Amino acid sequence: MIKFFEYNWQVRDEWIAWCSQLTNEELLNERQGGAGSILYTLFHIIDVEYSWILGIQGKEDIIFQFTDYNTLEDVNSLSKKLRNEIAEFLKTNLDGLKKKAVSVPWDEEQHTVDDILHHIIAHEIHHIGQLSIWARELKLQPVPANFIGRERISVNSF
Amino acid sequence: MIKFFEYNWQVRDEWIAWCSQLTNEELLNERQGGAGSILYTLFHIIDVEYSWILGIQGKEDIIFQFTDYNTLEDVNSLSKKLRNEIAEFLKTNLDGLKKKAVSVPWDEEQHTVDDILHHIIAHEIHHIGQLSIWARELKLQPVPANFIGRERISVNSF
Repeated sequence: MIKFFEYNWQVRDEWIAWCSQLTNEELLNERQGGAGSILYTLFHIIDVEYSWILGIQGKEDIIFQFTDYNTLEDVNSLSKKLRNEIAEFLKTNLDGLKKKAVSVPWDEEQHTVDDILHHIIAHEIHHIGQLSIWARELKLQPVPANFIGRERISVNSF
Repeated sequence: MIKFFEYNWQVRDEWIAWCSQLTNEELLNERQGGAGSILYTLFHIIDVEYSWILGIQGKEDIIFQFTDYNTLEDVNSLSKKLRNEIAEFLKTNLDGLKKKAVSVPWDEEQHTVDDILHHIIAHEIHHIGQLSIWARELKLQPVPANFIGRERISVNSF
């Protein structure tokens, strides 16, 4: 499971670097489908991941407003800051936790920690797939999405 | 790991059902980015998954030509047929296999079984994210991608 987080974070950083070739206006441009704009998609991925990780830990959700993070630098800072906290949590032994049922304020159903971790992982990969289409529509080459054939970065490096 | 395969196969079936509202011409229409067309994307996901699973088993790759599977019915049949075989393989205990290094003819590098399974999973989720953008461009609602909040289908059902 941890390998998917490492993969997602590496790919996310590559997309954030990729974004630096665009103006902030292009990053905020409303696009068809997905979460709306390229920058909002990245913000949304970060926000959703953190909310679920807080939920797993039984901590109160922290709501971030996109208007406070609507530049690439702000999104990058938020990503790095929250990721440090998430990496620390993921380094702890999750095996005993996986079957634990979790309730969160934004969902009526309870979910196991294991399912929530799957959900966070699939959520990011899905949205990154969307960015890759928008990249081609902008006549730009997307960040490669391959899981294999990339240098691996350990959760300990984040 | 198996949960991601179950999720991917369920979402894939929902996309195949979703496709039935489009004509074959629309399904084959060349789109920007991704693997090209909606139908080719589904074929590509199926083909890549199977090739890697054959590779893990040390079996020779089987090459499928899209020209032989360029209708929704053909792609659906291929998906179901290969999936039966893959499900049987995944039901065996993979734990002892995960660290095994695998060589395949289309890649110079060796990869562990564990990494290949991660690769197959991320590959499908990524391409499905791309379909969701194309759906919106066609003014259609995409198949929901949530991992949680969906009825779970076990690998034993495939």
